[in-house]
Amino acid sequence: MQGVIAKQPGGPEQLAYVEMDEPKLKAGELLIEVHATAVNRTDILNREGKSGYALNPIIGIEVAGVVAETNGNKEFSIGDRVMGLVNGGAYAEKVAMPANRAMLIPKSLTFEEAAAIPEVYLTAFQTLYWLGNLKKYETVLIHAGGSGVGTAAIQLAKRLSHAKVLTTAGTDEKLQVCKQLGADVLINYKSASFDEEVQKATNQEGADLILDFVGASYWERNYRSIAIDGRWVLIGVLGGSTVEKVKLMDLMAKRIQLTGTLLTPRSDQYKAELTKDFSEKTSALFDNKSLQPVIDQVFPIEDVAKAHRHMESNKNIGKILLKVK
Amino acid sequence: MQGVIAKQPGGPEQLAYVEMDEPKLKAGELLIEVHATAVNRTDILNREGKSGYALNPIIGIEVAGVVAETNGNKEFSIGDRVMGLVNGGAYAEKVAMPANRAMLIPKSLTFEEAAAIPEVYLTAFQTLYWLGNLKKYETVLIHAGGSGVGTAAIQLAKRLSHAKVLTTAGTDEKLQVCKQLGADVLINYKSASFDEEVQKATNQEGADLILDFVGASYWERNYRSIAIDGRWVLIGVLGGSTVEKVKLMDLMAKRIQLTGTLLTPRSDQYKAELTKDFSEKTSALFDNKSLQPVIDQVFPIEDVAKAHRHMESNKNIGKILLKVK
Repeated sequence: MQGVIAKQPGGPEQLAYVEMDEPKLKAGELLIEVHATAVNRTDILNREGKSGYALNPIIGIEVAGVVAETNGNKEFSIGDRVMGLVNGGAYAEKVAMPANRAMLIPKSLTFEEAAAIPEVYLTAFQTLYWLGNLKKYETVLIHAGGSGVGTAAIQLAKRLSHAKVLTTAGTDEKLQVCKQLGADVLINYKSASFDEEVQKATNQEGADLILDFVGASYWERNYRSIAIDGRWVLIGVLGGSTVEKVKLMDLMAKRIQLTGTLLTPRSDQYKAELTKDFSEKTSALFDNKSLQPVIDQVFPIEDVAKAHRHMESNKNIGKILLKVK
Repeated sequence: MQGVIAKQPGGPEQLAYVEMDEPKLKAGELLIEVHATAVNRTDILNREGKSGYALNPIIGIEVAGVVAETNGNKEFSIGDRVMGLVNGGAYAEKVAMPANRAMLIPKSLTFEEAAAIPEVYLTAFQTLYWLGNLKKYETVLIHAGGSGVGTAAIQLAKRLSHAKVLTTAGTDEKLQVCKQLGADVLINYKSASFDEEVQKATNQEGADLILDFVGASYWERNYRSIAIDGRWVLIGVLGGSTVEKVKLMDLMAKRIQLTGTLLTPRSDQYKAELTKDFSEKTSALFDNKSLQPVIDQVFPIEDVAKAHRHMESNKNIGKILLKVK
């Protein structure tokens, strides 16, 4: 079979789609014939040799495809259409997938649509619910609304919780997409101070939950944007990691819960439980199109270098996919 | 009736036990004949005019006594022995207490013992369970183990959760009390670096939960002391509020949940629910002496100035009480 490796740690030019051995299955793993996979930031770190998340030399962490071998697992049959996270190896014709992370693809979705779901939706679901404890009708501030996780979070917060969704993005084009997905308040962070807009839109009360991909450069403004008893989940530091002079009494006065998280390094058991909970709560909503994967562009797997360059240009809205079959 | 006021904002010399009007009951309040009350840090702030938590000019926030008027409330009868938090007015012969914050005093306890329970035990319970989500057999690091909240937290963590309790204090005398209460690992922070001791005692894994009364001066060491997926509850800033540099990526790497809290400003509804949950889980344990209030000294109410000076000298282990009747 063929799979994508980085010949040397480096730029997109190092990516090559080459002949590789088929994966050897461990107990509890299914063999998946891959139809589509997706590009993630972690794939770029992996290509550059900066992330050792997977021992697998083949890049990629999510796929949609068909079960080719059940390996004794009784919950799936050969031919089942499944999607899910894998421990590396996704940019390939075949991949091993832990069976407890496989989700049946809702009937109405194509493989490309399905491959756009696992990473961003599981991250958004985990952040909103397992960590952020979002409750019905609460107010949530979702930064980077046009990103993969942002577009998933907007939809989940609206469809599962009827939340009031405030979102930020850097272009009006991205904000229009957020609006179509259901966001209630659109803030262009280049033309407005987002904390003032949040205050206006919440009757000066602030947001019950903040999804923070930005970190240091937004610290003060996020503090001003959060409500008393608010939850603040930190899932990225695109705006820097180091905050100067943090006043702990401020966190006490507003009784804030600040949670840092990363999904990829979590245990297999955690990912399996998250997958199960997510699948139960969203499968029907994907099937009836209430929830939709947001796709930016589909590249053939042979054009993987182009796909990586496209992500690194930061112009995508939603997911960048690779079609394998 | 008589009650303690501050004649002017200032030192203990401003306290006077003087003739005052009896409290006027609002709907939902009981009239309590006070037998004992306790000294809290917030009383000192109130005396100094730095805290406006209560409109009541009479100082004090917790009592043990007898129901003198039920005011139509059916859950209590005249003569019931109760303890609980009040909205100011505790240093007096009579006080109004919201009925949904009153707890029946376990039979085997005296009024003085009961008056030592509400504030520190409710704070410790809220911090360990409602915010810190302590689970059975987990490891908890309790700073200021000799303080009122510290002594309560050590006992709750042992009796309710069979936790492994690591505690810090500044004298060996305080650590001996912590040991008697059940603490497993005793750390004198003046003669040892507590983070190194925590690492040693946890097989380098760190504590699942930290109760932090200290804040800025312990920030780095608390970070080194916490486990992956640890919860860190910030309930005081005795060591300063401002941390010079916080690295958000550190919080993400360890997936830390940092929660700031204050109990006194919370809503009446919150305090009522907390009281109910606490009472259900601990009442029998107080009655059979598995849980014990830790009393430093009992002063007659007329010596309230002495009692405040004693607290301000920071030498007490456990609660300082005032006997009213």
